Amino acid sequence: MASGKDLPVSPLMLPLPAMPPVPGVRIATGVAGIRYKAREDVTMMAFPAGTTVAGVFTRNKCPGAPVDWCRAALKGGKARALVVTAGNSNVFTGKAGRETCKATAAAMAELAGCKPGEVFLASTGVIGEKLPTEKLTAALPGVFAALGDDGWQHAARAIMTTDTFPKGATRTARIGEATVTVSGIAKGSGMIAPDMATMLCFLATDAKIPAGALQAILRSGSDRSFNCVTVDSDTSTSDTVLLFATGATKHPRVPAEGGAILKDFRRAVHEVLMDLALMVARDGEGAQKLIRIDVTGAVSAKSAHRIGMSIANSPLVKTAIAGEDANWGRIVMAVGKSGEPADRDKLSVGVGGVWMAREGEIVPGYDEAPVVAHMKGREVAISVDLGLGRGKATVWTCDLTHGYIDINGAYRS
Amino acid sequence: MASGKDLPVSPLMLPLPAMPPVPGVRIATGVAGIRYKAREDVTMMAFPAGTTVAGVFTRNKCPGAPVDWCRAALKGGKARALVVTAGNSNVFTGKAGRETCKATAAAMAELAGCKPGEVFLASTGVIGEKLPTEKLTAALPGVFAALGDDGWQHAARAIMTTDTFPKGATRTARIGEATVTVSGIAKGSGMIAPDMATMLCFLATDAKIPAGALQAILRSGSDRSFNCVTVDSDTSTSDTVLLFATGATKHPRVPAEGGAILKDFRRAVHEVLMDLALMVARDGEGAQKLIRIDVTGAVSAKSAHRIGMSIANSPLVKTAIAGEDANWGRIVMAVGKSGEPADRDKLSVGVGGVWMAREGEIVPGYDEAPVVAHMKGREVAISVDLGLGRGKATVWTCDLTHGYIDINGAYRS
Repeated sequence: MASGKDLPVSPLMLPLPAMPPVPGVRIATGVAGIRYKAREDVTMMAFPAGTTVAGVFTRNKCPGAPVDWCRAALKGGKARALVVTAGNSNVFTGKAGRETCKATAAAMAELAGCKPGEVFLASTGVIGEKLPTEKLTAALPGVFAALGDDGWQHAARAIMTTDTFPKGATRTARIGEATVTVSGIAKGSGMIAPDMATMLCFLATDAKIPAGALQAILRSGSDRSFNCVTVDSDTSTSDTVLLFATGATKHPRVPAEGGAILKDFRRAVHEVLMDLALMVARDGEGAQKLIRIDVTGAVSAKSAHRIGMSIANSPLVKTAIAGEDANWGRIVMAVGKSGEPADRDKLSVGVGGVWMAREGEIVPGYDEAPVVAHMKGREVAISVDLGLGRGKATVWTCDLTHGYIDINGAYRS
Repeated sequence: MASGKDLPVSPLMLPLPAMPPVPGVRIATGVAGIRYKAREDVTMMAFPAGTTVAGVFTRNKCPGAPVDWCRAALKGGKARALVVTAGNSNVFTGKAGRETCKATAAAMAELAGCKPGEVFLASTGVIGEKLPTEKLTAALPGVFAALGDDGWQHAARAIMTTDTFPKGATRTARIGEATVTVSGIAKGSGMIAPDMATMLCFLATDAKIPAGALQAILRSGSDRSFNCVTVDSDTSTSDTVLLFATGATKHPRVPAEGGAILKDFRRAVHEVLMDLALMVARDGEGAQKLIRIDVTGAVSAKSAHRIGMSIANSPLVKTAIAGEDANWGRIVMAVGKSGEPADRDKLSVGVGGVWMAREGEIVPGYDEAPVVAHMKGREVAISVDLGLGRGKATVWTCDLTHGYIDINGAYRS
């Protein structure tokens, strides 16, 4: 399987930043031996009583058992622990998969002194193989005993599967006169890489935020970050983003509906999410180039987003960029195939800040030299203007290369 | 550009069948030198007065000028000539593109002694470059002079771009006591390969069929054939299927609404379309395996079709098959990402006639040996049963290989 290979680190890699403790969050990692040999594959976080939680999950209609578990647990809005495993996704495992979730949450709840419904679970890895529950539950007490304030960087590594570099981001924010921290880690390199991928992301803050307000901030932030990034158009059965707020730092009380007091906090959460989402794109399987697509002039923001994703998911656009070919014909095709309102004769396409086609025709005498130079870089910017309205959106993806075929077309054994 | 390479012939190639004349249809091919050197790039067909025509076209919102032309011409329901060019698609060429269509149709109409609105046009090739109209119109008289009854096989070659083999099919059908012929040619290897692809398909018959009845048969046949085939999910700006009925052979009168008398004729048209559609999949860029996906038990036929296409367009499913990996986890993912009704715990997945997963779980003790052997073949069959209803559909695609990246990721120059 993919994880058995030593994949070269993505040339688009960004270094893992220093990640200070987040008051209230205790972290540890450990080895359960679920699938990998000789590497940490269990990540645990524990939170104090009163911690609120928000979550967004895959839209895949065949979600993994841990996603079902989290959706149910989220209704309570309270969290005391998180257990993440790498190597087996516990997806399409039927009744056994549900039992694994139940047993893991029960074991964790007993350690943490909380209810099973306050334990959140996520798993990533091979689909359709039963997760060895006893190996996992047997490892939990040792990991629990190791919980400490530090450990975000270890955790960023322990949740990896096909990722070629660990992903973390951190910000501070002001709530009234107080300063709080928002930190997060993520894993993901294909939207799913069947044996071994999925996008998981865990954030925590020491702010005290009502669950409803927290959920609204996480939802809007995910819509602007993870939902604007695609590697291969495939949607994992396990995608999970969770945000925990411990309330360990004192600040003015936040009303249930959130509101203006959370303006800077919202910015911080959104920035952490965006950092992490772009790291996932930068670690896209086989990626050699990060692609930013700005769509303007669409009939609505939603339409602009759909057009952007149609371009970002087009194998022909992505292979053209891999070949350093500013092939705007393929971009026109991808705009048209989105099904969104478009008028060929008002459409403009640019690359690297240079408009190549304007209002339905190639720009007369356009100078290809700066475009060619831009295409050779690690970051490629595509601009599309529909000329119809004020709707705009920005999405990101990576190129489609031989590396993607190597990673995903290899024999599983 | 892609066409500049000598691509190896697809290992899934089928030989071009013998293609007898279709009474009333005269064909010729010629060299206009639009883009290619030293190969035929213009195909012409001429039809007698009274010929009816049906057409279906790309759903891409940025269609090429010839598609716009044909859509308008189709309203008349009558056809006297067809002109097809390879090498330049006349897409995204603005006013110049429309002028090219007008000039080509006018020149052809003068030769054929008909109205410009009875001339049908199709072009395939590079997007965004003006088609050299004068080269084309200058070549038309010579091609017209060469028109003859034979020439289907030549035409099948002259419309090719990135295709690695020519595609043709023919059938006979009974209308009353008379026997008529239905023949067709097609080109296509990516849904679009920007510089050089697009799916074009031209059929003709000597039956006399009212335009409305002809259109209904072509629409239903296309829905079951070309609309069930995908190579890379990308939708060309130029896809065109045209069916001409010359009426050169006498048979009982067909009423305007068609009906039972056309039962066998409908079968013949559908079979020709299906043959040609599968040849396009077999010539999919880089294809090493033809993939058939049977979806059953969906809530409706439409839902089954969408689920089938979600599987067929999944890069992860297609790369797994390229790697001869019967990775049913990726198939589950692709079912779920379709957004169609699915219940994970009722879902079954099979490959090569062997059910690997049944009702949400791996089949206990399932024997992988016959599946592994099946995956090594040139044709791979996937079965998915949703367990929800009676909706079913079959779609076809090909695997995603290094060959696809080679063809589409190469520098354009």
